[in-house]
Amino acid sequence: MANHFERLSLRHSEGSTTILVGRDLLGQAQVPLTPWLEGRTVFAVTCPTVRRLHGSALEPLTAAAARLEVLEVPDGEEAKHLEVAGRLWTSMIEAGGKRDSRLIAFGGGTVGDLGGFVAGCFLRGIEYAQVPTTLLAQVDAAIGGKTAIDWGGTKNSVGLFHHPAMVISDVAFLETLPRDELRSALAEVVKTAVLLDPLLLESVESKLEDLLGGDSKALEPVVVATARAKARVVERDPLEGGDRKLLNFGHTLGHALESALSYRQLRHGDAVSYGMLFALRLAVNRGLEPAVARRCRQILRRFDLPSLPEVDRDRVLGAMARDKKNFEGGLTWILPVALGEGALVDDLNPGEVASELESFLADPWASDE
Amino acid sequence: MANHFERLSLRHSEGSTTILVGRDLLGQAQVPLTPWLEGRTVFAVTCPTVRRLHGSALEPLTAAAARLEVLEVPDGEEAKHLEVAGRLWTSMIEAGGKRDSRLIAFGGGTVGDLGGFVAGCFLRGIEYAQVPTTLLAQVDAAIGGKTAIDWGGTKNSVGLFHHPAMVISDVAFLETLPRDELRSALAEVVKTAVLLDPLLLESVESKLEDLLGGDSKALEPVVVATARAKARVVERDPLEGGDRKLLNFGHTLGHALESALSYRQLRHGDAVSYGMLFALRLAVNRGLEPAVARRCRQILRRFDLPSLPEVDRDRVLGAMARDKKNFEGGLTWILPVALGEGALVDDLNPGEVASELESFLADPWASDE
Repeated sequence: MANHFERLSLRHSEGSTTILVGRDLLGQAQVPLTPWLEGRTVFAVTCPTVRRLHGSALEPLTAAAARLEVLEVPDGEEAKHLEVAGRLWTSMIEAGGKRDSRLIAFGGGTVGDLGGFVAGCFLRGIEYAQVPTTLLAQVDAAIGGKTAIDWGGTKNSVGLFHHPAMVISDVAFLETLPRDELRSALAEVVKTAVLLDPLLLESVESKLEDLLGGDSKALEPVVVATARAKARVVERDPLEGGDRKLLNFGHTLGHALESALSYRQLRHGDAVSYGMLFALRLAVNRGLEPAVARRCRQILRRFDLPSLPEVDRDRVLGAMARDKKNFEGGLTWILPVALGEGALVDDLNPGEVASELESFLADPWASDE
Repeated sequence: MANHFERLSLRHSEGSTTILVGRDLLGQAQVPLTPWLEGRTVFAVTCPTVRRLHGSALEPLTAAAARLEVLEVPDGEEAKHLEVAGRLWTSMIEAGGKRDSRLIAFGGGTVGDLGGFVAGCFLRGIEYAQVPTTLLAQVDAAIGGKTAIDWGGTKNSVGLFHHPAMVISDVAFLETLPRDELRSALAEVVKTAVLLDPLLLESVESKLEDLLGGDSKALEPVVVATARAKARVVERDPLEGGDRKLLNFGHTLGHALESALSYRQLRHGDAVSYGMLFALRLAVNRGLEPAVARRCRQILRRFDLPSLPEVDRDRVLGAMARDKKNFEGGLTWILPVALGEGALVDDLNPGEVASELESFLADPWASDE
């Protein structure tokens, strides 16, 4: 008997993305997949680790497509390089790729970012699907059409918006993830829950141990709810002109910490967790109810984050100033104003931010509790 | 007194493109330009020849922008390379480019294709303007949001749709163009006129000598009409799913000739002229009134095209089969069915095409006249 799966959709200017969340999905998702693949040349972009762990999941695709070409890229952030993209385009041209060929990004966020970019620029854009194998990609990176590579020493500096035709999130893949990676991904879930979905925050609170342990039964509804909240906000603001920026809660400081630490000592999600902790301080200064901040902090405390490495305040401030999200006008902060409601704040006094940051870096958990 | 200029607009999914056509426009176009540039970092992508001939036209921009960085790329097709794009992105990052920075592609079709691609992928897309300096770019390449570089030995194999915010076509630039280039560009005008605007065909017929001689007074209304016809068809079909393919009249064989001759012995527009001549034969076989074909041929005859270099028929057929416009399904031909009306034809018998091509390559001008 086929397992249950959840079907969401995200409408955008080029059409719509079908999002499926469930277990052992690739075999089951024949209804959307078969007609999309039938008679096509299909390029599956993946990395060695994912291929080793889950490569057999690609088999149902082979049956449906006219031809499946697997294109392997390095594990991790190394894949997000212009040379790797160039190599994929060369392979796709040599394999006779056409405008109606398909691409499947099968892996975590880096494979998805690279695969979407490669699909978006091949012959001015071919359709692609995201088959995310990590929690971070299932709840965040695979949804919303952001694609990118890293260039010029800057993360995600080259890319485009190109929505996948489908996102197929199989929660069974999550069972092989290490706890560190699950925790880091759960930061994006908390981020989404705090500003967009208080009910989701309750589920996270009540099931946190199972979620951190990679229990796919507990993770499934959390993936569905986070994907749904993200899809709704992306529909309202596809190009991140306004509301979509709410998804950057915790990221203003988070990105700066990652950059100041040369992307080595802190996982992305952990940096975002620290970024949320800091944003909560700023938010309380602007009138957020202290009980709300306390509740969010309590969840993050249960994450048992690695301690914040020592980092120079001015380096962090410098990294914030260079952040690509900045416009000529200055820095925008995303701050909760109540549970389930956030605001874009661009009038914070830089001196206040600098002094608050000083004390935060000295003791991130200090608070009014 | 300011000269008259024509203002068109092209609506698309991301907003709309303002198209201005006139003489000495950059100084005059302050109404759309100044608010678009004010307070911004502006990157002007250009090539040595254009900078030498027309560089001073950039001066009014310097006054409006916060900062103008000129980025020079090689003349001609060499600019459309991934390494050149990478170098521009590096410069833009180092210069502190932001999401609200602007890019201006100042040059011919290659600068426009590259500049649009670089703008479209920088920080997932910044706004840009096309300031085309060639007739080909003013009537065709700068309008419609197609951007690309060449990769893997294939023209325009990597790129995206990214519409410019503005196209500013100054016909004064056309006065410095050599006759060969004007003739080649007029092929795209004829292409547009035959399928979309019979009145434009009449103007071309009556003014052909002035147009070929680079008379900007004669060229101005032709640029306006061709730009308008292209804008209307792009509005109807932005992603080239249907009607926009009409703009490929003459290009199925034209591209194949260019490719079979290694892009060396025939200009793009001249290849398109030969492509139209051939398509007219196929069209007459399918019922196009011979008088219409004759009229089109007469214009092309007045172009005084360089003779068609000797080229192997099977090489040409092979190049058509590899053409990026092909889908897994096969080859599409754009054929006129009457003056001002074209059709996409995908059911031509390959044997018939091959045999017609044989006699065409032996004597392209032979006909039922």
